Amino acid sequence: MIEDKNPQRTPLEELGEFGLIEHLTKNFDIKHTTTVKGIGDDAAVLDLTAKQTVITTDLLVENVHFDLSYAPLKHLGYKAVIVNLSDVYAMNATASQITVSIAVSNRFPLEALEALYAGIETAAKIYNVDVVGGDTTSSTTGLIISVTALGEVDKKDVVYRDGAKPNDLLVVSGDIGAAYMGLQVLEREKEVFKVNPKNQPDLEAYTYIIERQLKPEARKDIIELLKALEVKPTAMIDISDGLSSEILHICKQSDVGVEIYENKIPLDPQVISTCEEFNIDSTTIALNGGEDYELLMTISQKDFPKIKGNPNLTVIGFMTEKNRGMHLITRGEQAIPIIAKGWNAMNNAG
Amino acid sequence: MIEDKNPQRTPLEELGEFGLIEHLTKNFDIKHTTTVKGIGDDAAVLDLTAKQTVITTDLLVENVHFDLSYAPLKHLGYKAVIVNLSDVYAMNATASQITVSIAVSNRFPLEALEALYAGIETAAKIYNVDVVGGDTTSSTTGLIISVTALGEVDKKDVVYRDGAKPNDLLVVSGDIGAAYMGLQVLEREKEVFKVNPKNQPDLEAYTYIIERQLKPEARKDIIELLKALEVKPTAMIDISDGLSSEILHICKQSDVGVEIYENKIPLDPQVISTCEEFNIDSTTIALNGGEDYELLMTISQKDFPKIKGNPNLTVIGFMTEKNRGMHLITRGEQAIPIIAKGWNAMNNAG
Repeated sequence: MIEDKNPQRTPLEELGEFGLIEHLTKNFDIKHTTTVKGIGDDAAVLDLTAKQTVITTDLLVENVHFDLSYAPLKHLGYKAVIVNLSDVYAMNATASQITVSIAVSNRFPLEALEALYAGIETAAKIYNVDVVGGDTTSSTTGLIISVTALGEVDKKDVVYRDGAKPNDLLVVSGDIGAAYMGLQVLEREKEVFKVNPKNQPDLEAYTYIIERQLKPEARKDIIELLKALEVKPTAMIDISDGLSSEILHICKQSDVGVEIYENKIPLDPQVISTCEEFNIDSTTIALNGGEDYELLMTISQKDFPKIKGNPNLTVIGFMTEKNRGMHLITRGEQAIPIIAKGWNAMNNAG
Repeated sequence: MIEDKNPQRTPLEELGEFGLIEHLTKNFDIKHTTTVKGIGDDAAVLDLTAKQTVITTDLLVENVHFDLSYAPLKHLGYKAVIVNLSDVYAMNATASQITVSIAVSNRFPLEALEALYAGIETAAKIYNVDVVGGDTTSSTTGLIISVTALGEVDKKDVVYRDGAKPNDLLVVSGDIGAAYMGLQVLEREKEVFKVNPKNQPDLEAYTYIIERQLKPEARKDIIELLKALEVKPTAMIDISDGLSSEILHICKQSDVGVEIYENKIPLDPQVISTCEEFNIDSTTIALNGGEDYELLMTISQKDFPKIKGNPNLTVIGFMTEKNRGMHLITRGEQAIPIIAKGWNAMNNAG
């Protein structure tokens, strides 16, 4: 589907490993005073003496987490950074540094890696993080991207998954289910393309949901908003595997139950219309879709006036005593037990 | 060659991703007070306020960096940690935390991952590092291991690659070339095995060099020794790609030249005898072999009395003005320019 309009193909061997790293990372400038030494030695040196540090890591594997037949490499580089930053923000921390390792087969020309790194650079710029290290190696088959992200946070501000209390409100940022429906559209177009490669797909009606899949954003703005509103969530997690899966993590680790309201779950109109087109229940998608990279948090009821009416934050339910279990209250006012059917990378693979 | 004596094969699907992570990491205990929160949230939380922090990351890819037909998974897990810790020590830092991500295809049963993680756990125990996070996902083909390591170091003690001065001594820890020759023996036995699977190889004469390849150690002890001797190297790097490649890094970044003496390069007798058997020049192996994970450092001449006679440290040459170039002085007193032909993962791949 993605036509390669770039005729230039420089084989990676021409540069060698060190030349390649130098070439790909030459535009990465250092923005943080906490970065003492970035790329170029055995290790980067950081000065993290002012605050606490959070660290998180994610591995993206071709044909498991992404499909290069429709994911442009620049978007992929961007997304690889975002999925890690999202975990940093889920700790109520500010992202500061990342390392990026890639394994790539020689079927990729230099120009492909340049596109990938352009996406990484763009994300690093927009989210104000320093790229301080990494590893570039070969792969016998597909592309693998491994990112580790560091963030900083005042000790008193860290938010774990285990602090939710009964009667806390369950709040989600943005809207959910879009990334999953974007993937469904892309997968369908891929099948169409296989049958008729000359077909030019009209994806106008799916712009938002496709962008949510291919180029998601991490909710740095929500962390800043919460600070401005003087709200510290009691528990927080990012939505990578699906709403129900993340809710279960909070309930399990906080030892509480939950009631969420189907009619409160924020859905974009494109998600609703695409679900109708695909004949899928939109609530199922919202609960199990994953890859939204929104933040799911619990807040004390006393903080409700501070967030009330904010278009970025939606109250979708409340926490209960553990013995009341975990339920979705449907539009028809039925209580259905929540089980995690979240996107599970282990089951996707062949 | 490695016979699987374990008849138990539990499919990974049985556990699911979260169950798998929980199962594999349940033995990882937290040893450092700087680890505030380890595995189990969106990110780990660390308190790195006392010292500077170093961070390094490496990616190991099946059939590029290791061959499971002769690398036992437990050793591989151990080695994946070691190669990262080696970079931490090369900064004159003490390793404190690691994250470990793996991508694995469903052809691996749970028991294989348990063996891999047992090796990771053993290395973490011996080198006193906390495993604070990671990612476990599927791969459509081989096994990929990505480790990120953190270390701590007093600001005044950090050693970069760029501090070498003319007349500094060039010093190497341990002996070199063994890991590469171990690989040659293993590759040969693999070919023999292909022809005659019933052949039981006698590897008695190669014990040391095979162990150096399959289960290398990182020189934490050298960092401790240098501290005890009150020697701070002017530059340091670990030998992962080969002596000549590492020397060139130091020369380039420090803006100096070098003379190294062929007859000073420390070689184990098994390396010498195996080189003779394979009809390879042992100096070529020492210069270009790689994967030794020894430390290469430059020290001021005034520190020579402190290291003189220490069996762990060998002076192999000295740094010069840049315009004198980089040379190996042979046993026949010829000066040969040093060029890096080090092990280069980019060229090894298909």
